Amino acid sequence: MLTYELKKAPGIPLYEALYRCIRGDILSGKLPAGTKLPSKRALAVHLEVSKITVEAAYNQLSAEGYILPVEKVGYFVEAVETLPAPSPAVPAAEVKPEADLLDLTTNAPAHFPFSVWSRLQRQVLLDYGHQLLQPMPSCGCLDLRRAIAKHLAGFRGMQVDPENIIIGAGTDFLYNLLPQLLGQDKIFALEEPGYEKIHRIYSAAGVRVHRATMDGQGVIPEALAEAKVLHFSPSHHFPTGIVTPMLRRQALLKWASSGENWIVEDDYDCEFRFDTHPMPALYGQSDRVVYINSFSKSLAPSIRLGYMVLPPSLMEKFRRELFFYSGTVSGFEQHTLARFLSQGHFEKHINRMRKFYRSRRNQLLQIIRACPLQDRLTIEEADAGLHFIVKVDTPLSDEQLQAYCLGLGLKIRTLSSYYHGAAPMESQHRIVVNYSGLQDEDVHKLEAILKG
Amino acid sequence: MLTYELKKAPGIPLYEALYRCIRGDILSGKLPAGTKLPSKRALAVHLEVSKITVEAAYNQLSAEGYILPVEKVGYFVEAVETLPAPSPAVPAAEVKPEADLLDLTTNAPAHFPFSVWSRLQRQVLLDYGHQLLQPMPSCGCLDLRRAIAKHLAGFRGMQVDPENIIIGAGTDFLYNLLPQLLGQDKIFALEEPGYEKIHRIYSAAGVRVHRATMDGQGVIPEALAEAKVLHFSPSHHFPTGIVTPMLRRQALLKWASSGENWIVEDDYDCEFRFDTHPMPALYGQSDRVVYINSFSKSLAPSIRLGYMVLPPSLMEKFRRELFFYSGTVSGFEQHTLARFLSQGHFEKHINRMRKFYRSRRNQLLQIIRACPLQDRLTIEEADAGLHFIVKVDTPLSDEQLQAYCLGLGLKIRTLSSYYHGAAPMESQHRIVVNYSGLQDEDVHKLEAILKG
Repeated sequence: MLTYELKKAPGIPLYEALYRCIRGDILSGKLPAGTKLPSKRALAVHLEVSKITVEAAYNQLSAEGYILPVEKVGYFVEAVETLPAPSPAVPAAEVKPEADLLDLTTNAPAHFPFSVWSRLQRQVLLDYGHQLLQPMPSCGCLDLRRAIAKHLAGFRGMQVDPENIIIGAGTDFLYNLLPQLLGQDKIFALEEPGYEKIHRIYSAAGVRVHRATMDGQGVIPEALAEAKVLHFSPSHHFPTGIVTPMLRRQALLKWASSGENWIVEDDYDCEFRFDTHPMPALYGQSDRVVYINSFSKSLAPSIRLGYMVLPPSLMEKFRRELFFYSGTVSGFEQHTLARFLSQGHFEKHINRMRKFYRSRRNQLLQIIRACPLQDRLTIEEADAGLHFIVKVDTPLSDEQLQAYCLGLGLKIRTLSSYYHGAAPMESQHRIVVNYSGLQDEDVHKLEAILKG
Repeated sequence: MLTYELKKAPGIPLYEALYRCIRGDILSGKLPAGTKLPSKRALAVHLEVSKITVEAAYNQLSAEGYILPVEKVGYFVEAVETLPAPSPAVPAAEVKPEADLLDLTTNAPAHFPFSVWSRLQRQVLLDYGHQLLQPMPSCGCLDLRRAIAKHLAGFRGMQVDPENIIIGAGTDFLYNLLPQLLGQDKIFALEEPGYEKIHRIYSAAGVRVHRATMDGQGVIPEALAEAKVLHFSPSHHFPTGIVTPMLRRQALLKWASSGENWIVEDDYDCEFRFDTHPMPALYGQSDRVVYINSFSKSLAPSIRLGYMVLPPSLMEKFRRELFFYSGTVSGFEQHTLARFLSQGHFEKHINRMRKFYRSRRNQLLQIIRACPLQDRLTIEEADAGLHFIVKVDTPLSDEQLQAYCLGLGLKIRTLSSYYHGAAPMESQHRIVVNYSGLQDEDVHKLEAILKG
């Protein structure tokens, strides 16, 4: 019977730990294709966990295609690509435990001004006291909306009325609000490739989602077909890094205004451009544009605070039809962030982080350009915010490439995995490197791995 | 032209201030029925505010029936009930500015343990440091889910697996999630009377909402008709205070299990029962019950933190279909609350508040029972959490009663205003008194008002 020592790590549910163990054994070939897994009940008893835990782990494995449920019979290991056989010099291949993997798939900020934040938190409690016990306005506290308007004016050159800003508990909450505001019967278009998560959120909120074809200039207006809302990132597309140029922007603005369509401008990491300035925002150039951004990327993902700026007509609709919502962000944190912005700490932090990320990026590019595989690696989109793309000259498929990297201790995602539909040939063999969460020791580890 | 000194108060948008001024003038009769209001542009110029501000104020007034828009002509004051003529002894009636009104319509906590909270906030930043920069699990941090499970065990006798708890940015966010989990095609039933807000949120999320008729024992199962989801508060209905007795609970549980229906048990202020213990929760008695509660009422409304406990089958569905959502509550605050709960501060706070509210309630009941109007006032539902109901023996309609109270400086809501449909005769002439936000000086003010 499968035996694992399941340690509860903070933030990792038990079922997830079990899922990772079994997935590791499947990927390493220890559990070969066709193996029947123990029954949920038997494994639960054996591992001394609840049946629910085993069930959740099996469900996730089966959702991701690692195992196949056969009704009334059991679960069988699927024929997934296992890791390539080890080269003779290396001892038996073993998938590193998740915690030991170098994760190039997510971004987490490297620094946070803890002491400033702590001081501001304390000040807010002292200064506001009982005022903090009152219900918050549903758009967020005025101090914060003013501070955001000022930040947008200084940093993005945007003229924004604080009365048109809505604060929300992260962009996910705001994405959920948008269909209620723009119409649940409308078709929403998203970039292809792009964040699968946004697709999932809009679908869960009950709207139909189309994927909009892109060329080298971004979304093609003619490809929007029946869509009435376009959600995209003109200043910087993820993951290709495409910046939509002026003429294409104008064509898309025209699409919006002439068809009474809406544009949702997702400006998600505009703070981190190194070699160029971000292009002016679309918001304000047309009254059909909603601007959306978040502090989760620029400050810390555990600060769940996003915002959107609505054109006046939509803000009026929000006040008329959705005024009943309570605010979703803690008043304590809103006031803390308001002071953080208005006292200049945010700007200082961003400047510091930009310098840090730029040097981190250059360090990585050097390592890649100097490694023995350099002839087979090409850097693309190196000004693309907190990630860049490495094109790999390899006969492996993208799945094999991913499994191969896993064997080396690298958790990666390929560009093709960001396509909702079939990924075109020219997107293959490209690794999307998210580097903002790497610590110094991680960089050394990466260097050692690449030196082989 | 209308001239007001619009002061920006914290949390009150300018349009709201303008709306209040005009509404006040309409209610006081200063702007009689039929008066044509100045054009939006003219008033904006006159008051030196933006046209948007005037527009928003006019829209709210018109949505609430104070003014009537006539296309291409303008806005006219409607024939609303103005305040009753002042008694001869009193100088000219004047609506008090909103800030001077004694507000009996909302609950805000009277105390908050600021120094404990501040200390825990600081400790969390020191102790967790970089861990706080990692993305949060979408269900919320495990520490907090464990602390909530322990709290529910101790306080509500509930056996809850922390893995089945989802933390969300206030109950509004969770209400939005429920149709995505239970099915957007299902009809949701809500108590009649009840919180209009819940009705609005479900409607905005795209589900059809029915109102369920109640008798003295709560929701009538036979009245649920086509509904597949019942959202209600069996332990304590707002605003009538009805506690659903055991037999009715069993009938509703049977309705849920035999028809594959769902119950959402909204346990919103179970902490504040004075004379009785809350009845055992429905959650756990059937696998068709979702339990939902929040800390916004028991701690502070500006702490946007609610949670729901799902039955295992729904949790599995959440993991399978909605796992992509990011958490919506700040990690800093989740860890702070986790410590607040697990170190016993919450229990201490609740005990202190219960004592405080009980004595506040008794004080108010005494004032009412001793006032010159005592023969025309009857107290109902005085164990009903943070509000009680005063039945008024009066020939006035409920609208007139409300306007009359406004003239006295009291902002009230009547029981009939909580009906979505037509309120039955027997609900008339009942004032719902929310008292938790009253300060000592407010109580003296109320006493003076009632003494006439």
